[in-house]
Amino acid sequence: MNVTLREEIYELAKEWVLEAGKTIREKINDPLTINTKSDRNDLVTTMDRDTEYFFMTHIKKTYPDHFIISEEGYGDELQSLDGTVWIIDPIDGTMNFVHQKRNFAISVGIYHDGIGEIGLIYDVMAGKLYSAKRGEGAFINKTPLPLLSEQKSLYDSILGLNHFWLCENRLVEESAIQRLVKTVRGTRTFGSAALEFAYVAEGIIDGYMTMGLAPWDIAAGIVIVNETGGVTTDAFGAELSLLGKSSVLTCNPAIQEQIINDYMKKGRK
Amino acid sequence: MNVTLREEIYELAKEWVLEAGKTIREKINDPLTINTKSDRNDLVTTMDRDTEYFFMTHIKKTYPDHFIISEEGYGDELQSLDGTVWIIDPIDGTMNFVHQKRNFAISVGIYHDGIGEIGLIYDVMAGKLYSAKRGEGAFINKTPLPLLSEQKSLYDSILGLNHFWLCENRLVEESAIQRLVKTVRGTRTFGSAALEFAYVAEGIIDGYMTMGLAPWDIAAGIVIVNETGGVTTDAFGAELSLLGKSSVLTCNPAIQEQIINDYMKKGRK
Repeated sequence: MNVTLREEIYELAKEWVLEAGKTIREKINDPLTINTKSDRNDLVTTMDRDTEYFFMTHIKKTYPDHFIISEEGYGDELQSLDGTVWIIDPIDGTMNFVHQKRNFAISVGIYHDGIGEIGLIYDVMAGKLYSAKRGEGAFINKTPLPLLSEQKSLYDSILGLNHFWLCENRLVEESAIQRLVKTVRGTRTFGSAALEFAYVAEGIIDGYMTMGLAPWDIAAGIVIVNETGGVTTDAFGAELSLLGKSSVLTCNPAIQEQIINDYMKKGRK
Repeated sequence: MNVTLREEIYELAKEWVLEAGKTIREKINDPLTINTKSDRNDLVTTMDRDTEYFFMTHIKKTYPDHFIISEEGYGDELQSLDGTVWIIDPIDGTMNFVHQKRNFAISVGIYHDGIGEIGLIYDVMAGKLYSAKRGEGAFINKTPLPLLSEQKSLYDSILGLNHFWLCENRLVEESAIQRLVKTVRGTRTFGSAALEFAYVAEGIIDGYMTMGLAPWDIAAGIVIVNETGGVTTDAFGAELSLLGKSSVLTCNPAIQEQIINDYMKKGRK
Protein backbone atom coordinates (compact mmCIF):
# COMPACT_ATOMS: atom_id res chain seq x y z
CA MET A 1 0.00 0.00 0.00
CA ASN A 2 1.23 3.45 -0.98
CA VAL A 3 2.56 5.20 2.14
CA THR A 4 0.88 8.55 1.46
CA LEU A 5 -2.47 6.90 0.88
CA ARG A 6 -1.99 4.77 3.99
CA GLU A 7 -1.30 7.89 6.04
CA GLU A 8 -4.50 9.49 4.74
CA ILE A 9 -6.55 6.37 5.51
CA TYR A 10 -4.98 6.10 8.97
CA GLU A 11 -5.83 9.70 9.86
CA LEU A 12 -9.43 9.30 8.73
CA ALA A 13 -9.86 5.94 10.45
CA LYS A 14 -8.48 7.41 13.67
CA GLU A 15 -10.82 10.41 13.40
CA TRP A 16 -13.84 8.12 12.93
CA VAL A 17 -12.81 5.83 15.79
CA LEU A 18 -12.44 8.77 18.17
CA GLU A 19 -15.76 10.25 17.03
CA ALA A 20 -17.58 6.93 17.44
CA GLY A 21 -16.04 6.55 20.90
CA LYS A 22 -17.19 10.03 21.89
CA THR A 23 -20.76 9.19 20.84
CA ILE A 24 -20.68 5.97 22.87
CA ARG A 25 -19.41 7.82 25.94
CA GLU A 26 -22.16 10.41 25.60
CA LYS A 27 -24.84 7.71 25.38
CA ILE A 28 -23.33 5.27 27.90
CA ASN A 29 -26.16 5.76 30.40
CA ASP A 30 -29.03 5.71 27.89
CA PRO A 31 -31.45 2.76 28.11
CA LEU A 32 -30.23 -0.14 25.94
CA THR A 33 -32.06 -2.56 23.69
CA ILE A 34 -30.21 -5.83 24.14
CA ASN A 35 -30.68 -8.88 21.92
CA THR A 36 -28.85 -12.17 21.66
CA LYS A 37 -27.29 -13.74 18.56
CA SER A 38 -25.68 -17.20 18.34
CA ASP A 39 -26.44 -18.11 21.99
CA ARG A 40 -27.92 -16.62 25.17
CA ASN A 41 -24.62 -14.97 26.10
CA ASP A 42 -23.78 -13.57 22.65
CA LEU A 43 -25.16 -10.07 23.16
CA VAL A 44 -25.78 -7.26 20.72
CA THR A 45 -27.21 -3.80 21.33
CA THR A 46 -28.47 -0.97 19.18
CA MET A 47 -25.21 0.78 20.04
CA ASP A 48 -23.18 -1.98 18.32
CA ARG A 49 -25.35 -1.66 15.21
CA ASP A 50 -25.41 2.16 15.17
CA THR A 51 -21.64 2.32 15.57
CA GLU A 52 -21.05 -0.17 12.75
CA TYR A 53 -23.47 1.78 10.51
CA PHE A 54 -21.52 4.96 11.25
CA PHE A 55 -18.28 3.35 10.04
CA MET A 56 -19.91 1.71 7.07
CA THR A 57 -21.44 4.93 5.72
CA HIS A 58 -18.22 6.93 6.18
CA ILE A 59 -16.04 4.29 4.55
CA LYS A 60 -18.34 3.62 1.59
CA LYS A 61 -18.74 7.35 0.92
CA THR A 62 -15.01 8.14 1.11
CA TYR A 63 -13.61 4.93 -0.36
CA PRO A 64 -16.31 3.30 -2.50
CA ASP A 65 -13.81 0.69 -3.75
CA HIS A 66 -12.85 -0.52 -0.23
CA PHE A 67 -14.47 -3.59 1.32
CA ILE A 68 -15.74 -4.15 4.86
CA ILE A 69 -15.84 -7.25 7.07
CA SER A 70 -17.77 -6.50 10.21
CA GLU A 71 -19.64 -8.10 13.08
CA GLU A 72 -23.17 -6.77 12.88
CA GLY A 73 -24.20 -7.38 9.29
CA TYR A 74 -23.48 -4.15 7.39
CA GLY A 75 -20.30 -5.52 5.81
CA ASP A 76 -19.57 -7.31 2.54
CA GLU A 77 -19.55 -11.06 1.91
CA LEU A 78 -15.93 -11.61 0.89
CA GLN A 79 -14.21 -14.68 -0.53
CA SER A 80 -10.74 -13.11 -0.47
CA LEU A 81 -8.78 -10.25 1.09
CA ASP A 82 -7.83 -8.73 -2.29
CA GLY A 83 -7.89 -4.94 -2.36
CA THR A 84 -8.33 -2.80 0.75
CA VAL A 85 -10.48 -4.36 3.47
CA TRP A 86 -11.63 -2.75 6.70
CA ILE A 87 -12.25 -5.38 9.39
CA ILE A 88 -14.40 -3.85 12.12
CA ASP A 89 -15.84 -4.72 15.49
CA PRO A 90 -17.89 -1.68 16.53
CA ILE A 91 -17.99 -2.84 20.18
CA ASP A 92 -15.68 -5.67 21.14
CA GLY A 93 -16.68 -6.90 24.59
CA THR A 94 -20.41 -6.23 24.33
CA MET A 95 -21.02 -8.12 27.59
CA ASN A 96 -18.70 -5.68 29.37
CA PHE A 97 -20.40 -2.78 27.61
CA VAL A 98 -23.78 -3.95 28.91
CA HIS A 99 -22.79 -5.08 32.43
CA GLN A 100 -19.83 -2.87 33.25
CA LYS A 101 -20.10 0.18 31.02
CA ARG A 102 -16.34 -0.10 30.57
CA ASN A 103 -13.64 -2.55 29.39
CA PHE A 104 -14.88 -2.66 25.79
CA ALA A 105 -13.23 -1.42 22.61
CA ILE A 106 -13.75 -0.30 19.05
CA SER A 107 -11.50 -2.45 16.85
CA VAL A 108 -10.55 -1.48 13.29
CA GLY A 109 -7.97 -3.37 11.24
CA ILE A 110 -7.19 -2.26 7.69
CA TYR A 111 -5.62 -4.81 5.34
CA HIS A 112 -4.36 -4.42 1.77
CA ASP A 113 -4.11 -7.55 -0.36
CA GLY A 114 -4.15 -9.59 2.82
CA ILE A 115 -1.41 -7.66 4.61
CA GLY A 116 -2.26 -5.85 7.85
CA GLU A 117 -1.40 -2.18 7.33
CA ILE A 118 -3.25 -0.36 10.13
CA GLY A 119 -4.58 -1.42 13.53
CA LEU A 120 -6.69 0.71 15.89
CA ILE A 121 -8.10 -0.51 19.21
CA TYR A 122 -9.87 2.15 21.24
CA ASP A 123 -10.58 1.52 24.91
CA VAL A 124 -13.53 3.88 24.80
CA MET A 125 -14.14 4.60 28.49
CA ALA A 126 -10.44 4.81 29.41
CA GLY A 127 -9.82 7.07 26.40
CA LYS A 128 -6.83 4.95 25.37
CA LEU A 129 -6.16 4.47 21.67
CA TYR A 130 -3.80 1.61 20.81
CA SER A 131 -2.60 2.10 17.24
CA ALA A 132 -0.05 0.80 14.76
CA LYS A 133 0.95 1.07 11.14
CA ARG A 134 2.97 -1.77 9.65
CA GLY A 135 6.69 -1.10 10.10
CA GLU A 136 6.20 2.08 12.13
CA GLY A 137 5.74 0.74 15.66
CA ALA A 138 2.79 0.76 18.03
CA PHE A 139 1.46 3.47 20.30
CA ILE A 140 -0.91 4.18 23.17
CA ASN A 141 -2.26 7.58 22.23
CA LYS A 142 1.00 9.37 21.32
CA THR A 143 3.33 7.27 23.48
CA PRO A 144 5.35 4.61 21.62
CA LEU A 145 5.13 1.08 23.01
CA PRO A 146 8.49 -0.61 23.66
CA LEU A 147 9.33 -3.98 22.10
CA LEU A 148 8.30 -6.96 24.23
CA SER A 149 10.92 -8.30 26.62
CA GLU A 150 13.06 -11.14 25.25
CA GLN A 151 13.69 -12.37 28.82
CA LYS A 152 10.36 -14.06 29.39
CA SER A 153 9.79 -17.61 30.54
CA LEU A 154 6.43 -19.37 30.59
CA TYR A 155 6.79 -19.74 34.36
CA ASP A 156 6.75 -16.01 34.99
CA SER A 157 4.12 -15.24 32.36
CA ILE A 158 0.57 -14.01 32.76
CA LEU A 159 -1.93 -15.39 30.25
CA GLY A 160 -5.30 -14.08 29.16
CA LEU A 161 -7.65 -17.04 28.98
CA ASN A 162 -11.38 -17.73 29.11
CA HIS A 163 -12.46 -20.17 31.85
CA PHE A 164 -14.55 -22.07 29.33
CA TRP A 165 -11.49 -23.87 27.87
CA LEU A 166 -10.76 -25.43 31.27
CA CYS A 167 -14.17 -27.13 31.08
CA GLU A 168 -15.07 -30.03 28.79
CA ASN A 169 -15.48 -28.64 25.24
CA ARG A 170 -15.37 -29.71 21.60
CA LEU A 171 -12.09 -28.11 20.60
CA VAL A 172 -9.35 -28.79 23.11
CA GLU A 173 -8.66 -31.22 25.95
CA GLU A 174 -9.40 -29.30 29.12
CA SER A 175 -6.60 -31.20 30.90
CA ALA A 176 -4.01 -29.59 28.59
CA ILE A 177 -5.28 -26.09 29.40
CA GLN A 178 -5.43 -26.93 33.11
CA ARG A 179 -1.75 -27.99 32.96
CA LEU A 180 -0.95 -24.69 31.28
CA VAL A 181 -2.80 -22.74 34.01
CA LYS A 182 -0.78 -24.54 36.67
CA THR A 183 2.49 -23.76 34.85
CA VAL A 184 2.18 -20.01 34.32
CA ARG A 185 2.48 -17.37 37.02
CA GLY A 186 -1.07 -16.12 36.63
CA THR A 187 -4.14 -15.94 34.42
CA ARG A 188 -6.54 -13.11 33.70
CA THR A 189 -9.88 -12.76 31.91
CA PHE A 190 -10.94 -9.32 30.72
CA GLY A 191 -13.83 -10.16 28.39
CA SER A 192 -12.65 -8.28 25.30
CA ALA A 193 -10.40 -10.03 22.76
CA ALA A 194 -9.36 -6.71 21.24
CA LEU A 195 -8.25 -5.37 24.62
CA GLU A 196 -6.44 -8.62 25.41
CA PHE A 197 -4.47 -8.22 22.16
CA ALA A 198 -3.75 -4.62 23.18
CA TYR A 199 -2.55 -5.79 26.61
CA VAL A 200 -0.22 -8.34 24.98
CA ALA A 201 1.23 -5.52 22.84
CA GLU A 202 1.59 -3.42 25.99
CA GLY A 203 3.32 -6.32 27.80
CA ILE A 204 0.90 -6.29 30.75
CA ILE A 205 -0.05 -9.86 29.86
CA ASP A 206 2.33 -12.12 27.96
CA GLY A 207 -0.16 -14.04 25.88
CA TYR A 208 -3.84 -14.46 25.09
CA MET A 209 -5.31 -17.71 23.89
CA THR A 210 -8.81 -18.68 22.90
CA MET A 211 -10.52 -21.15 20.66
CA GLY A 212 -13.13 -19.42 18.54
CA LEU A 213 -12.66 -15.86 17.33
CA ALA A 214 -13.92 -14.02 14.27
CA PRO A 215 -11.80 -11.79 11.99
CA TRP A 216 -13.18 -8.59 13.57
CA ASP A 217 -12.02 -9.72 17.02
CA ILE A 218 -8.38 -9.98 15.96
CA ALA A 219 -7.64 -8.00 12.78
CA ALA A 220 -6.52 -4.79 14.50
CA GLY A 221 -4.82 -6.67 17.32
CA ILE A 222 -2.61 -8.68 14.98
CA VAL A 223 -1.13 -5.49 13.47
CA ILE A 224 -0.55 -3.85 16.86
CA VAL A 225 0.95 -6.95 18.53
CA ASN A 226 3.20 -7.45 15.51
CA GLU A 227 4.64 -3.95 15.88
CA THR A 228 5.83 -4.66 19.45
CA GLY A 229 7.54 -7.89 18.38
CA GLY A 230 4.67 -10.22 19.34
CA VAL A 231 3.42 -13.10 17.23
CA THR A 232 -0.06 -14.37 16.36
CA THR A 233 -1.07 -17.77 14.96
CA ASP A 234 -3.93 -20.13 15.57
CA ALA A 235 -3.72 -21.94 18.92
CA PHE A 236 -1.80 -24.83 17.31
CA GLY A 237 0.80 -22.73 15.49
CA ALA A 238 -0.76 -22.54 12.03
CA GLU A 239 -1.22 -19.34 10.05
CA LEU A 240 -4.49 -17.52 10.69
CA SER A 241 -7.17 -16.88 8.11
CA LEU A 242 -9.14 -13.64 8.32
CA LEU A 243 -12.03 -15.04 6.30
CA GLY A 244 -13.52 -17.28 9.00
CA LYS A 245 -13.53 -18.24 12.65
CA SER A 246 -10.35 -19.59 14.18
CA SER A 247 -8.56 -20.42 17.40
CA VAL A 248 -5.96 -17.79 18.30
CA LEU A 249 -2.72 -17.49 20.24
CA THR A 250 -1.11 -14.07 20.40
CA CYS A 251 1.95 -13.77 22.61
CA ASN A 252 5.49 -12.84 23.36
CA PRO A 253 7.56 -14.98 20.94
CA ALA A 254 9.69 -16.23 23.86
CA ILE A 255 6.80 -18.39 25.10
CA GLN A 256 5.03 -19.27 21.82
CA GLU A 257 6.76 -22.54 20.96
CA GLN A 258 6.43 -23.97 24.46
CA ILE A 259 2.70 -23.21 24.66
CA ILE A 260 2.04 -24.71 21.23
CA ASN A 261 4.24 -27.81 21.49
CA ASP A 262 3.89 -28.77 25.15
CA TYR A 263 0.22 -27.92 25.69
CA MET A 264 -1.90 -27.05 22.66
CA LYS A 265 -0.75 -29.71 20.17
CA LYS A 266 -0.99 -32.37 22.89
CA GLY A 267 -4.51 -31.20 23.75
CA ARG A 268 -5.89 -30.88 20.24
CA LYS A 269 -9.15 -32.75 19.62
CA MET B 1 -18.23 2.55 67.90
CA ASN B 2 -18.95 6.17 68.74
CA VAL B 3 -20.01 7.99 65.55
CA THR B 4 -17.88 11.10 66.11
CA LEU B 5 -14.80 9.00 66.76
CA ARG B 6 -15.59 6.85 63.71
CA GLU B 7 -15.82 9.96 61.55
CA GLU B 8 -12.44 11.14 62.81
CA ILE B 9 -10.86 7.74 62.16
CA TYR B 10 -12.46 7.56 58.71
CA GLU B 11 -11.12 10.97 57.69
CA LEU B 12 -7.61 10.11 58.84
CA ALA B 13 -7.66 6.66 57.25
CA LYS B 14 -8.82 8.18 53.97
CA GLU B 15 -6.08 10.83 54.13
CA TRP B 16 -3.41 8.15 54.69
CA VAL B 17 -4.76 5.93 51.94
CA LEU B 18 -4.72 8.79 49.43
CA GLU B 19 -1.23 9.84 50.54
CA ALA B 20 0.11 6.27 50.26
CA GLY B 21 -1.47 6.01 46.81
CA LYS B 22 0.15 9.24 45.69
CA THR B 23 3.56 7.94 46.79
CA ILE B 24 3.03 4.70 44.88
CA ARG B 25 2.02 6.60 41.73
CA GLU B 26 5.13 8.78 41.98
CA LYS B 27 7.39 5.74 42.31
CA ILE B 28 5.54 3.44 39.90
CA ASN B 29 8.41 3.43 37.37
CA ASP B 30 11.25 3.08 39.89
CA PRO B 31 13.23 -0.19 39.80
CA LEU B 32 11.62 -2.80 42.08
CA THR B 33 13.08 -5.38 44.40
CA ILE B 34 10.79 -8.37 44.07
CA ASN B 35 10.82 -11.37 46.40
CA THR B 36 8.55 -14.36 46.79
CA LYS B 37 6.80 -15.58 49.94
CA SER B 38 4.72 -18.77 50.28
CA ASP B 39 5.32 -19.91 46.68
CA ARG B 40 7.00 -18.76 43.46
CA ASN B 41 3.96 -16.69 42.45
CA ASP B 42 3.33 -15.05 45.84
CA LEU B 43 5.20 -11.81 45.20
CA VAL B 44 6.22 -9.04 47.55
CA THR B 45 8.11 -5.84 46.81
CA THR B 46 9.76 -3.13 48.85
CA MET B 47 6.78 -0.98 47.91
CA ASP B 48 4.39 -3.36 49.73
CA ARG B 49 6.59 -3.23 52.83
CA ASP B 50 7.20 0.54 52.74
CA THR B 51 3.47 1.22 52.32
CA GLU B 52 2.56 -1.05 55.22
CA TYR B 53 5.23 0.60 57.38
CA PHE B 54 3.75 4.02 56.52
CA PHE B 55 0.31 2.92 57.78
CA MET B 56 1.70 1.17 60.84
CA THR B 57 3.67 4.19 62.05
CA HIS B 58 0.76 6.61 61.50
CA ILE B 59 -1.76 4.36 63.23
CA LYS B 60 0.43 3.49 66.21
CA LYS B 61 1.37 7.14 66.74
CA THR B 62 -2.20 8.44 66.52
CA TYR B 63 -4.06 5.53 68.10
CA PRO B 64 -1.60 3.61 70.30
CA ASP B 65 -4.44 1.41 71.63
CA HIS B 66 -5.56 0.25 68.16
CA PHE B 67 -4.41 -3.08 66.74
CA ILE B 68 -3.24 -3.94 63.24
CA ILE B 69 -3.59 -7.10 61.16
CA SER B 70 -1.58 -6.76 57.98
CA GLU B 71 0.05 -8.72 55.19
CA GLU B 72 3.73 -7.90 55.33
CA GLY B 73 4.68 -8.51 58.96
CA TYR B 74 4.43 -5.15 60.74
CA GLY B 75 1.08 -5.98 62.34
CA ASP B 76 0.11 -7.54 65.68
CA GLU B 77 -0.44 -11.22 66.44
CA LEU B 78 -4.09 -11.20 67.48
CA GLN B 79 -6.23 -13.94 68.99
CA SER B 80 -9.45 -11.89 68.88
CA LEU B 81 -10.99 -8.85 67.21
CA ASP B 82 -11.70 -7.09 70.53
CA GLY B 83 -11.10 -3.35 70.46
CA THR B 84 -10.38 -1.41 67.26
CA VAL B 85 -8.48 -3.36 64.63
CA TRP B 86 -7.12 -2.05 61.32
CA ILE B 87 -6.89 -4.84 58.74
CA ILE B 88 -4.55 -3.74 55.96
CA ASP B 89 -3.27 -4.92 52.64
CA PRO B 90 -0.80 -2.25 51.49
CA ILE B 91 -0.86 -3.54 47.89
CA ASP B 92 -3.56 -6.05 47.03
CA GLY B 93 -2.76 -7.53 43.64
CA THR B 94 1.04 -7.38 43.87
CA MET B 95 1.36 -9.47 40.68
CA ASN B 96 -0.59 -6.79 38.81
CA PHE B 97 1.51 -4.09 40.47
CA VAL B 98 4.69 -5.79 39.21
CA HIS B 99 3.53 -6.89 35.75
CA GLN B 100 0.92 -4.31 34.83
CA LYS B 101 1.62 -1.25 36.95
CA ARG B 102 -2.14 -0.98 37.40
CA ASN B 103 -5.14 -2.99 38.66
CA PHE B 104 -3.93 -3.13 42.26
CA ALA B 105 -5.39 -1.54 45.39
CA ILE B 106 -4.71 -0.39 48.92
CA SER B 107 -7.22 -2.13 51.18
CA VAL B 108 -8.02 -0.88 54.70
CA GLY B 109 -10.85 -2.31 56.81
CA ILE B 110 -11.45 -0.98 60.32
CA TYR B 111 -13.34 -3.20 62.76
CA HIS B 112 -14.53 -2.49 66.31
CA ASP B 113 -15.21 -5.47 68.56
CA GLY B 114 -15.48 -7.63 65.46
CA ILE B 115 -17.93 -5.38 63.58
CA GLY B 116 -16.83 -3.84 60.28
CA GLU B 117 -17.17 -0.07 60.65
CA ILE B 118 -15.10 1.37 57.78
CA GLY B 119 -13.93 0.00 54.43
CA LEU B 120 -11.54 1.72 52.01
CA ILE B 121 -10.33 0.20 48.73
CA TYR B 122 -8.21 2.50 46.61
CA ASP B 123 -7.60 1.64 42.97
CA VAL B 124 -4.35 3.57 43.00
CA MET B 125 -3.65 4.06 39.30
CA ALA B 126 -7.28 4.77 38.37
CA GLY B 127 -7.57 7.20 41.29
CA LYS B 128 -10.83 5.55 42.36
CA LEU B 129 -11.56 5.31 46.09
CA TYR B 130 -14.29 2.85 47.05
CA SER B 131 -15.40 3.64 50.60
CA ALA B 132 -18.10 2.81 53.12
CA LYS B 133 -19.05 3.36 56.73
CA ARG B 134 -21.44 0.86 58.31
CA GLY B 135 -25.03 2.05 57.82
CA GLU B 136 -24.10 5.05 55.68
CA GLY B 137 -23.84 3.53 52.19
CA ALA B 138 -20.93 3.04 49.84
CA PHE B 139 -19.23 5.46 47.47
CA ILE B 140 -16.81 5.71 44.58
CA ASN B 141 -14.97 8.91 45.39
CA LYS B 142 -17.94 11.18 46.23
CA THR B 143 -20.55 9.35 44.14
CA PRO B 144 -22.93 7.08 46.10
CA LEU B 145 -23.21 3.50 44.84
CA PRO B 146 -26.78 2.28 44.24
CA LEU B 147 -28.09 -0.86 45.91
CA LEU B 148 -27.50 -4.04 43.92
CA SER B 149 -30.29 -5.09 41.58
CA GLU B 150 -32.79 -7.55 43.04
CA GLN B 151 -33.60 -8.80 39.53
CA LYS B 152 -30.56 -10.98 39.03
CA SER B 153 -30.49 -14.61 38.01
CA LEU B 154 -27.42 -16.82 38.04
CA TYR B 155 -27.83 -17.28 34.27
CA ASP B 156 -27.27 -13.61 33.52
CA SER B 157 -24.55 -13.13 36.13
CA ILE B 158 -20.86 -12.43 35.69
CA LEU B 159 -18.57 -14.06 38.25
CA GLY B 160 -15.04 -13.21 39.30
CA LEU B 161 -13.13 -16.44 39.59
CA ASN B 162 -9.53 -17.67 39.51
CA HIS B 163 -8.83 -20.34 36.88
CA PHE B 164 -7.02 -22.43 39.47
CA TRP B 165 -10.31 -23.70 40.98
CA LEU B 166 -11.25 -25.27 37.64
CA CYS B 167 -8.12 -27.44 37.90
CA GLU B 168 -7.63 -30.34 40.30
CA ASN B 169 -7.02 -28.90 43.78
CA ARG B 170 -7.26 -29.81 47.47
CA LEU B 171 -10.28 -27.74 48.41
CA VAL B 172 -13.10 -28.11 45.92
CA GLU B 173 -14.15 -30.52 43.17
CA GLU B 174 -13.14 -28.84 39.93
CA SER B 175 -16.18 -30.39 38.22
CA ALA B 176 -18.51 -28.33 40.45
CA ILE B 177 -16.76 -25.09 39.53
CA GLN B 178 -16.75 -26.08 35.85
CA ARG B 179 -20.53 -26.60 36.03
CA LEU B 180 -20.85 -23.15 37.58
CA VAL B 181 -18.77 -21.60 34.80
CA LYS B 182 -21.02 -23.19 32.19
CA THR B 183 -24.13 -21.86 33.97
CA VAL B 184 -23.30 -18.20 34.35
CA ARG B 185 -23.23 -15.64 31.56
CA GLY B 186 -19.54 -14.90 31.92
CA THR B 187 -16.46 -15.08 34.11
CA ARG B 188 -13.69 -12.59 34.73
CA THR B 189 -10.33 -12.64 36.51
CA PHE B 190 -8.79 -9.33 37.58
CA GLY B 191 -6.05 -10.50 39.94
CA SER B 192 -6.94 -8.36 42.96
CA ALA B 193 -9.41 -9.67 45.55
CA ALA B 194 -9.97 -6.18 46.95
CA LEU B 195 -10.88 -4.82 43.52
CA GLU B 196 -13.14 -7.82 42.84
CA PHE B 197 -15.03 -7.03 46.06
CA ALA B 198 -15.23 -3.40 44.92
CA TYR B 199 -16.59 -4.51 41.53
CA VAL B 200 -19.26 -6.64 43.25
CA ALA B 201 -20.28 -3.57 45.26
CA GLU B 202 -20.36 -1.56 42.04
CA GLY B 203 -22.46 -4.25 40.34
CA ILE B 204 -20.08 -4.68 37.40
CA ILE B 205 -19.64 -8.30 38.43
CA ASP B 206 -22.33 -10.13 40.40
CA GLY B 207 -20.12 -12.31 42.56
CA TYR B 208 -16.54 -13.20 43.38
CA MET B 209 -15.55 -16.58 44.71
CA THR B 210 -12.21 -18.01 45.73
CA MET B 211 -10.86 -20.61 48.08
CA GLY B 212 -8.03 -19.18 50.12
CA LEU B 213 -7.99 -15.55 51.20
CA ALA B 214 -6.46 -13.82 54.19
CA PRO B 215 -8.25 -11.22 56.38
CA TRP B 216 -6.43 -8.29 54.70
CA ASP B 217 -7.74 -9.39 51.28
CA ILE B 218 -11.38 -9.09 52.34
CA ALA B 219 -11.83 -6.91 55.45
CA ALA B 220 -12.50 -3.64 53.60
CA GLY B 221 -14.44 -5.35 50.85
CA ILE B 222 -16.91 -6.94 53.26
CA VAL B 223 -17.93 -3.53 54.64
CA ILE B 224 -18.28 -1.95 51.20
CA VAL B 225 -20.20 -4.86 49.64
CA ASN B 226 -22.50 -4.93 52.67
CA GLU B 227 -23.43 -1.28 52.15
CA THR B 228 -24.71 -1.95 48.61
CA GLY B 229 -26.84 -4.86 49.81
CA GLY B 230 -24.37 -7.60 48.95
CA VAL B 231 -23.51 -10.54 51.16
CA THR B 232 -20.24 -12.26 52.09
CA THR B 233 -19.72 -15.71 53.61
CA ASP B 234 -17.21 -18.47 53.10
CA ALA B 235 -17.69 -20.37 49.84
CA PHE B 236 -20.00 -22.89 51.54
CA GLY B 237 -22.29 -20.39 53.28
CA ALA B 238 -20.68 -20.28 56.73
CA GLU B 239 -19.79 -17.11 58.58
CA LEU B 240 -16.29 -15.80 57.87
CA SER B 241 -13.55 -15.44 60.43
CA LEU B 242 -11.13 -12.53 60.11
CA LEU B 243 -8.46 -14.26 62.18
CA GLY B 244 -7.34 -16.77 59.58
CA LYS B 245 -7.46 -17.87 55.97
CA SER B 246 -10.79 -18.80 54.48
CA SER B 247 -12.69 -19.48 51.30
CA VAL B 248 -14.89 -16.56 50.29
CA LEU B 249 -18.06 -15.88 48.32
CA THR B 250 -19.17 -12.26 48.04
CA CYS B 251 -22.15 -11.62 45.80
CA ASN B 252 -25.54 -10.22 45.03
CA PRO B 253 -27.89 -11.97 47.51
CA ALA B 254 -30.19 -13.00 44.64
CA ILE B 255 -27.63 -15.59 43.50
CA GLN B 256 -25.99 -16.59 46.80
CA GLU B 257 -28.15 -19.56 47.79
CA GLN B 258 -28.04 -21.16 44.35
CA ILE B 259 -24.24 -20.92 44.13
CA ILE B 260 -23.79 -22.39 47.61
CA ASN B 261 -26.41 -25.14 47.47
CA ASP B 262 -26.22 -26.28 43.85
CA TYR B 263 -22.47 -25.97 43.28
CA MET B 264 -20.24 -25.31 46.28
CA LYS B 265 -21.72 -27.68 48.86
CA LYS B 266 -21.89 -30.43 46.25
CA GLY B 267 -18.24 -29.82 45.35
CA ARG B 268 -16.81 -29.56 48.86
CA LYS B 269 -13.85 -31.87 49.54
